[in-house]
Amino acid sequence: MTELAAVKAALKTQAVETPSWAYGNSGTRFKVFAQQGVPRTPQEKLDDAAKVHEFTGVAPTVALHIPWDKVDGSDGYAELAKHAGDRGVKLGAINSNTFQDDDYRLGSICHPDAAVRRKAVDHLLECVDIMDATESRDLKLWFADGTNYPGQDDIRARQDRLAEGLAEVYERLGDGQRMLLEYKFFEPAFYTTDVPDWGTAYAHCLKLGEKAQVVVDTGHHAPGTNIEFIVATLLREGKLGGFDFNSRFYADDDLMVGAADPFQLFRIMYEVLRGGGFSSEVAFMLDQCHNIEAKIPAIIRSVMNVQEATAKALLVDREALAAAQRSGDVLAANAVLMDAYNTDVRPLLREVRGEMGLDADPVAAYARSGWAEKIVAERVGGQQAGWGA
Amino acid sequence: MTELAAVKAALKTQAVETPSWAYGNSGTRFKVFAQQGVPRTPQEKLDDAAKVHEFTGVAPTVALHIPWDKVDGSDGYAELAKHAGDRGVKLGAINSNTFQDDDYRLGSICHPDAAVRRKAVDHLLECVDIMDATESRDLKLWFADGTNYPGQDDIRARQDRLAEGLAEVYERLGDGQRMLLEYKFFEPAFYTTDVPDWGTAYAHCLKLGEKAQVVVDTGHHAPGTNIEFIVATLLREGKLGGFDFNSRFYADDDLMVGAADPFQLFRIMYEVLRGGGFSSEVAFMLDQCHNIEAKIPAIIRSVMNVQEATAKALLVDREALAAAQRSGDVLAANAVLMDAYNTDVRPLLREVRGEMGLDADPVAAYARSGWAEKIVAERVGGQQAGWGA
Amino acid sequence: MTELAAVKAALKTQAVETPSWAYGNSGTRFKVFAQQGVPRTPQEKLDDAAKVHEFTGVAPTVALHIPWDKVDGSDGYAELAKHAGDRGVKLGAINSNTFQDDDYRLGSICHPDAAVRRKAVDHLLECVDIMDATESRDLKLWFADGTNYPGQDDIRARQDRLAEGLAEVYERLGDGQRMLLEYKFFEPAFYTTDVPDWGTAYAHCLKLGEKAQVVVDTGHHAPGTNIEFIVATLLREGKLGGFDFNSRFYADDDLMVGAADPFQLFRIMYEVLRGGGFSSEVAFMLDQCHNIEAKIPAIIRSVMNVQEATAKALLVDREALAAAQRSGDVLAANAVLMDAYNTDVRPLLREVRGEMGLDADPVAAYARSGWAEKIVAERVGGQQAGWGA
Amino acid sequence: MTELAAVKAALKTQAVETPSWAYGNSGTRFKVFAQQGVPRTPQEKLDDAAKVHEFTGVAPTVALHIPWDKVDGSDGYAELAKHAGDRGVKLGAINSNTFQDDDYRLGSICHPDAAVRRKAVDHLLECVDIMDATESRDLKLWFADGTNYPGQDDIRARQDRLAEGLAEVYERLGDGQRMLLEYKFFEPAFYTTDVPDWGTAYAHCLKLGEKAQVVVDTGHHAPGTNIEFIVATLLREGKLGGFDFNSRFYADDDLMVGAADPFQLFRIMYEVLRGGGFSSEVAFMLDQCHNIEAKIPAIIRSVMNVQEATAKALLVDREALAAAQRSGDVLAANAVLMDAYNTDVRPLLREVRGEMGLDADPVAAYARSGWAEKIVAERVGGQQAGWGA
Repeated sequence: MTELAAVKAALKTQAVETPSWAYGNSGTRFKVFAQQGVPRTPQEKLDDAAKVHEFTGVAPTVALHIPWDKVDGSDGYAELAKHAGDRGVKLGAINSNTFQDDDYRLGSICHPDAAVRRKAVDHLLECVDIMDATESRDLKLWFADGTNYPGQDDIRARQDRLAEGLAEVYERLGDGQRMLLEYKFFEPAFYTTDVPDWGTAYAHCLKLGEKAQVVVDTGHHAPGTNIEFIVATLLREGKLGGFDFNSRFYADDDLMVGAADPFQLFRIMYEVLRGGGFSSEVAFMLDQCHNIEAKIPAIIRSVMNVQEATAKALLVDREALAAAQRSGDVLAANAVLMDAYNTDVRPLLREVRGEMGLDADPVAAYARSGWAEKIVAERVGGQQAGWGA
Repeated sequence: MTELAAVKAALKTQAVETPSWAYGNSGTRFKVFAQQGVPRTPQEKLDDAAKVHEFTGVAPTVALHIPWDKVDGSDGYAELAKHAGDRGVKLGAINSNTFQDDDYRLGSICHPDAAVRRKAVDHLLECVDIMDATESRDLKLWFADGTNYPGQDDIRARQDRLAEGLAEVYERLGDGQRMLLEYKFFEPAFYTTDVPDWGTAYAHCLKLGEKAQVVVDTGHHAPGTNIEFIVATLLREGKLGGFDFNSRFYADDDLMVGAADPFQLFRIMYEVLRGGGFSSEVAFMLDQCHNIEAKIPAIIRSVMNVQEATAKALLVDREALAAAQRSGDVLAANAVLMDAYNTDVRPLLREVRGEMGLDADPVAAYARSGWAEKIVAERVGGQQAGWGA
Repeated sequence: MTELAAVKAALKTQAVETPSWAYGNSGTRFKVFAQQGVPRTPQEKLDDAAKVHEFTGVAPTVALHIPWDKVDGSDGYAELAKHAGDRGVKLGAINSNTFQDDDYRLGSICHPDAAVRRKAVDHLLECVDIMDATESRDLKLWFADGTNYPGQDDIRARQDRLAEGLAEVYERLGDGQRMLLEYKFFEPAFYTTDVPDWGTAYAHCLKLGEKAQVVVDTGHHAPGTNIEFIVATLLREGKLGGFDFNSRFYADDDLMVGAADPFQLFRIMYEVLRGGGFSSEVAFMLDQCHNIEAKIPAIIRSVMNVQEATAKALLVDREALAAAQRSGDVLAANAVLMDAYNTDVRPLLREVRGEMGLDADPVAAYARSGWAEKIVAERVGGQQAGWGA
Repeated sequence: MTELAAVKAALKTQAVETPSWAYGNSGTRFKVFAQQGVPRTPQEKLDDAAKVHEFTGVAPTVALHIPWDKVDGSDGYAELAKHAGDRGVKLGAINSNTFQDDDYRLGSICHPDAAVRRKAVDHLLECVDIMDATESRDLKLWFADGTNYPGQDDIRARQDRLAEGLAEVYERLGDGQRMLLEYKFFEPAFYTTDVPDWGTAYAHCLKLGEKAQVVVDTGHHAPGTNIEFIVATLLREGKLGGFDFNSRFYADDDLMVGAADPFQLFRIMYEVLRGGGFSSEVAFMLDQCHNIEAKIPAIIRSVMNVQEATAKALLVDREALAAAQRSGDVLAANAVLMDAYNTDVRPLLREVRGEMGLDADPVAAYARSGWAEKIVAERVGGQQAGWGA
């Protein structure tokens, strides 16, 4: 296989998981701007996600968020999985939610009150039950836990509670199931966050065992943090479970991945490839909020941005790079990387799509498909999906 | 008058304006945790604000937010002012809101569509009408305007629109009325913010004229920004109109002022005193969100934090400081400042309160007053006030 | 002229000024790593700068730094100018230095001691004398002034001293001469910096008059600051005098421009074009430290990075952009900008160079030229140029 | 023992190690301002450090830096230790230096060239030899290693080299000897730093074994990082080896500890106490640069700042705090902490000093001692100590 053929083959196997909640309304604390045609049910979210896969070819799974995507009945999730399958997609990771109940005002799994912790852990265990039903591999855990004021709670005791709760959930995981622990620098807690950085997530996952892995949300770091370094380190430690992709200029802006700093996304994808992480062991997920832009096209664009960064990373001449690095030629080594980054990979990706039987331009194809008009016309009445809905 | 007497006299004249919205529910984009007993009407917010003044003695005015505090009828605002007066407080600044209407998805006064801009400016003009009715001096303008993605709109054209809209509102101001223009680093817009820093606010105010002044929200700066420098600069330029006090560890956390970095608050208050800003020309306002803590006691605590910082700033031995500065003795100059900061001013403030006929401990006095229990018992049903309510 | 021809024409007129000091040794506070072949005299710096212009065609001027590039004799600067001219380049901006004398421990133009201020202002006046001799248009002022500890000096008094000193220098400027005032977030002062942001520089320049302009160093901002917004604003105000280009991941790293965030550089160049700043009124200068990489090739690479960003900015379809912006189509507007950014402009620039009679690949041509080997062989002995040398 | 007696007893046992290099000249990349009377030899540094201990009573040990404090002869270090002992102090941690040799341009222990790595590891082994001679317990390792440009070197390979080098040094440690691994966010490397955060240091120390511990330099974090959280976490993991105390407003400013954010220092000391870290297992060291202020008084002031923060932390009513935390009373819990912080502990510390037979005011006592004048008069000629000297 020629080198270019190998690049194309890799691009065809790429899989980006889209999140059900990104199809619903979202916003800031100041305002949620509702959009027309937004899904009202988990099924309608899957319908939209299937469109993203139909036009990109590389978004075959959809992450669920519990309880937002909760369905009733003993066969509810099996039916939901069938709904997805009928449209060409599969259910992906199960995301827990321990932040939108009044009981969680002072935390969930780290709360000072054992009763609230019990409730939170029970929710996580329920999520594993759902994973059994949906045949999901990954339980993605993000905790909003933390404190707003110095002294509010005991930092160390909260770590003890966290460890205890995680251990109970870890024990419940079945064969082939994993726990992905997400860290976040701050928000919604402002003084302490109980899993604020990769080090904390890593330390907990290490103690839990092999099924516990760290997930990197690209928007969850302090200003100036070198994210690709963390990616390289976690891969070296065998502890990178996946990504929540998005982009940001300031805090956790949840913008389209690659929109704020496409060079950073390229560097991240290069470290993924370098570290052997371009495999099914690392889950590539989007976690974004399309507050003001059209949602489905934004997700298509995001998937394409990941593809473009991946294509550029695949094009890096790794032998030339290694040679320049060995020789200590700073400029030459940098130039090898930049050569790949500066390449316009859009023609290559259009070719790849052609070979996959797809339209070369997913955004235009979606626009022509009439789906946007159809959902605006049909999804009238009912309760639109959104944060908390 | 002895020096200590002068300090006490200054502390007795202090006036901190509390914001009506801080008495209502608030939260993050993830969750608003409702509290019991929260006001349901502008009148009930004033009742709570009056309690803060009753126990602190230095919170005599209450800022309104339009439309959240809108009242009906030709005499509505006069009646509201009377309601306040009957409880010992007055109405303060009028805060506009051009961010919670669906039309404002892409901005308000800077929106690409002239019709939306018209609507926004009309709202601001209506706010001046209300100022006439409430006899408020200050119109406080904070714009959520900005963009999320590069290219989304034309940065410069938005400045032109901003200038045009502000000019129209400025012309409408009556004698003795002012426009306070607030800047904010980011949020809810993530890529550009149309008034992102003091320089932009200053440049606009300069062109508008003397009635336009800059307002400094202590949570609206990039990491590491020296806020007291901005305070000193704006005072030197005659352009500091007031403060929105709060505190933050990361972004615009809107925590109790003085909670995150009390030393910074002290330095700010020192520059206020140094620059002659401890006068009625500078409005000292709170702008906070008490997401997880009890609201009225949090506001009382915030007012007390401002008092403590002010007391320490008043205690700085300015002659000794100037002498050390002149001599280039870095350590001695720093030590003079730290001496004041390290002083425990709580006994002094207890004395001041005693001389003002107040309980020495406002938090305890409020707790004993039964008000918290009363509002929980009485404010049942109806729609609690909150962001957007 | 076709559109592409116009783009090419614009690229051929581009002029990037390189700084004499970037050819010398530099480092961090921890270590200056000396390189072989580094210039020992102002003349040798010009020789190197001429090489950069020879291979790029767009680096026709060289900024001097006084006293580092001070020459003796009544005709010293005329001879230096002739030395430059003989090699195809011209002398550019004069950069002052009021930070490397022991007297400046507590500041220069803002120092509490009038004698030190006098010395600093005299140095600046001397720089204008040199400008007369070198026929330089621009005096570039960067002040290391500030304080390290709260209380160390009076923030406001330092502003008064700054204003006074600047005014005296401004008065001395001749016809056609300008003062470019640079701001910097922090370093080497850690608590306050006397010109910390564009707002402060702008306020001073506004009072001084038309010959005083702000210069934007791309590395001198707080984390997360939107630099292109500042560029757009200063151009709108008629106060953008020029750039000090470099790039940074964290603080003022002084890396090759475009190396850390090429997308940001593109956005900056787009605002320059949008605001009419791609003209001789705005000086495009490099200000970089090549601590570990070969200096001349790094500067060539930097000039090329500016060219590439400019080419992409020139390729933006401004009509399509304006249409998408007007229609409020966030994704379409962003896509227009990204289309230009994602274009590989290196073939176009190779063409431009060919048409200018240059080698298509300046880095390779320089490497082949033997200059690097020649200076290593010839520049033996003497005192290498470097920070302070 | 009463509670207050216990607080006093704890304060009397406190030990803060001062660094030999802080007595010498230091500066920024822009300028090192030399001061009169600065030591010229390791012995003179010890003389100065002994003065700090003489007046504070809690600075009994002095950290050395190799090769800056290298002494000759087979008995050199024994004599140095005796020199210290004669003056009432002891030698403390040995600090390695793998950043000030030209060979280290691209790194030391992580350098791509095995020969350079060998040299670096040999230096570290030599440091352990010196520890044997000085009877030091701790080898403090800070690496300037990193890269400035994307692609410059392989991130992961550098981690492999780091692990290999550390392992060799770890093996060499004797009984009772420890390796303290320091992390740093950035500087002098700007793109990647090979030990950039506590997570990386922790992961390496965990693999090395019990003698490897993490050291927290309070200036080495990204903006907004919650340092006390890291302290609590490392203590919980049994991996906190010590502190390098200093303070900063922006980057690694190396100002006097407690000068920039005294409330943060208090919170850190509270977590130290809470986590059982106020013991000999955690080394409390200063690592500061007194660029513009008098060095010995600045170090005395720094030691006092640590004392004041410790005293406040000791005064926290931990039972009341725990009760408020358990009850979920955010404001009450915060108030308990703030009560201790707002206390003026200077009278208590004056008392403690009196009971220790010291002057109540170490700064004034030092000033009266004549030492400053003596060293200015006597330390004439020779080479002043400084960065690299």
